[in-house]
Amino acid sequence: MNGALHGVVTPLLTPFLADGTIAQNLFDAHAAQCLSEGSHYLAPFGTTGEATSIGMAARQDALERLLTSQNVQPNQLMPGTGLNAVQDTAALTRHAVGLGVAAVLLLPPFYYKNADEDGLYRYVATLIETVADDRLRIVLYHIPKFTGTGFSPAITRRLALDYPGIVAGYKDSSGQWMNTAQILRAAPDLAVFPGSESFLPQALAAGGAGCISASCNVNVAAIRAVYDALKAGENDKAKDRILEIEYVRQQLEGAGLIAASKAILALRTGQTDWLRCLPPLSDATAELSPALRDIARGQMSEISAK
Amino acid sequence: MNGALHGVVTPLLTPFLADGTIAQNLFDAHAAQCLSEGSHYLAPFGTTGEATSIGMAARQDALERLLTSQNVQPNQLMPGTGLNAVQDTAALTRHAVGLGVAAVLLLPPFYYKNADEDGLYRYVATLIETVADDRLRIVLYHIPKFTGTGFSPAITRRLALDYPGIVAGYKDSSGQWMNTAQILRAAPDLAVFPGSESFLPQALAAGGAGCISASCNVNVAAIRAVYDALKAGENDKAKDRILEIEYVRQQLEGAGLIAASKAILALRTGQTDWLRCLPPLSDATAELSPALRDIARGQMSEISAK
Repeated sequence: MNGALHGVVTPLLTPFLADGTIAQNLFDAHAAQCLSEGSHYLAPFGTTGEATSIGMAARQDALERLLTSQNVQPNQLMPGTGLNAVQDTAALTRHAVGLGVAAVLLLPPFYYKNADEDGLYRYVATLIETVADDRLRIVLYHIPKFTGTGFSPAITRRLALDYPGIVAGYKDSSGQWMNTAQILRAAPDLAVFPGSESFLPQALAAGGAGCISASCNVNVAAIRAVYDALKAGENDKAKDRILEIEYVRQQLEGAGLIAASKAILALRTGQTDWLRCLPPLSDATAELSPALRDIARGQMSEISAK
Repeated sequence: MNGALHGVVTPLLTPFLADGTIAQNLFDAHAAQCLSEGSHYLAPFGTTGEATSIGMAARQDALERLLTSQNVQPNQLMPGTGLNAVQDTAALTRHAVGLGVAAVLLLPPFYYKNADEDGLYRYVATLIETVADDRLRIVLYHIPKFTGTGFSPAITRRLALDYPGIVAGYKDSSGQWMNTAQILRAAPDLAVFPGSESFLPQALAAGGAGCISASCNVNVAAIRAVYDALKAGENDKAKDRILEIEYVRQQLEGAGLIAASKAILALRTGQTDWLRCLPPLSDATAELSPALRDIARGQMSEISAK
């Protein structure tokens, strides 16, 4: 496991103003809140953050302003930088590396579904050669549900062997534990993060690094507590809280992870800017199920005791 | 049918130098060649042109240089401008409209597969409001094989009714004639272009505008001849040439449209730069089947007589 990258990572939701620009004050405050509740890292501009819907200039600007806020250090960031054109991905990646981020989260190019593994390899190799910066750390982002393609164990192994230290991690949002297990075996030097806290017990037991999960946006303190208990070998202590985080996860998934989490943040902060999404996603609605309202109000102990 | 947009449209292949930049001289010469052989319009930066693999700056630069070459007039161009972020799409679209292009080809945003029709509508509406230019003409680009989503008859009708004249056309690369027929009925004012010359007879008979087809890159004279014969009602004259263009299409598809067409252009021009593709696609190989070699050498009459 890569010593530098481990823990609970929040793929930040992005709040928007009515004109479609990022509501930077809310974004900064949310980042600070997640860190104060125990998130080891923040991953702005992942799927949860509507990365692909935000323009390149706006993404770079928001990262700079997030760091200006002083609540976040560059080495606490793992921003997403993957677009389809390797030169555009290189521009976002170079910018992020220049800011001193811990790593970047890299989607595979996701237009051509018939690309072969050599082409995907060449994409990552070209990116690394174009950025040409020793500080570059890449977390491969595997989310076939949205990309229709992805980083197989074979291509991951090849990249990890050819670019040791640079290809440093793997986020597995396949939802398939078998894929995570195969990656851990194929590329044992990578920091492997399942895309859901549901896999934390298996992942940590098998040498995984932690998790990068959308629900951290609204429940990171509890997820961090589970992580800490599991790392300390306190399995009894972890057990109850695992039930709690599973319950929250299920409620969020049932209502749509992005929409439900944005509605919870809107309720918690009183800021309806949190309800907006960029097209093609539709805005979240303020209405929440009673269970999600309880989650928003943080009445976790009552819920898990039910 | 929209009077302004009709005919045979070549979605230009893009040649690349070893450093991944566009081989502009070959690009310019190929554009001029396609026009001289009868292509009504050119559509640079579609799927065939590896649009999504080329950086935003390079796309804009190549369009400007193509026009500087003086072989192509702005009103002969229908460039692709669709990316995932509406602000990035707006930047490419505004640039193209500023150059005076006939229309832009618009992919739907293709990351979020769970976006609903309202979100897709809002994406197009936001684009139109952001570009805010009366000269804007949009050809909706439906290619679900690569986008995993698309412009249904219902959303196309809604957009055509709400933005008459601006939403001006539809490229149907679904490969399903039934979808083309439904679009023609749902949005009769749009210029509808199937993505293959195979549908020219049905399309023209049903009020379609022509075709936008990858094989025009290597066979546009014959495709134009079929178009002209069908438009003139000379069905007997069209018949033999329809067999010919179908044969070429099948040979190209069998070997992969982009790879086979690039290899043919490499053979015809003697320029191996034509073989290159950007990642994630792998380069084409120079080897061609005997049938494709005959096609490259233009021995069409012998072939169709077989």
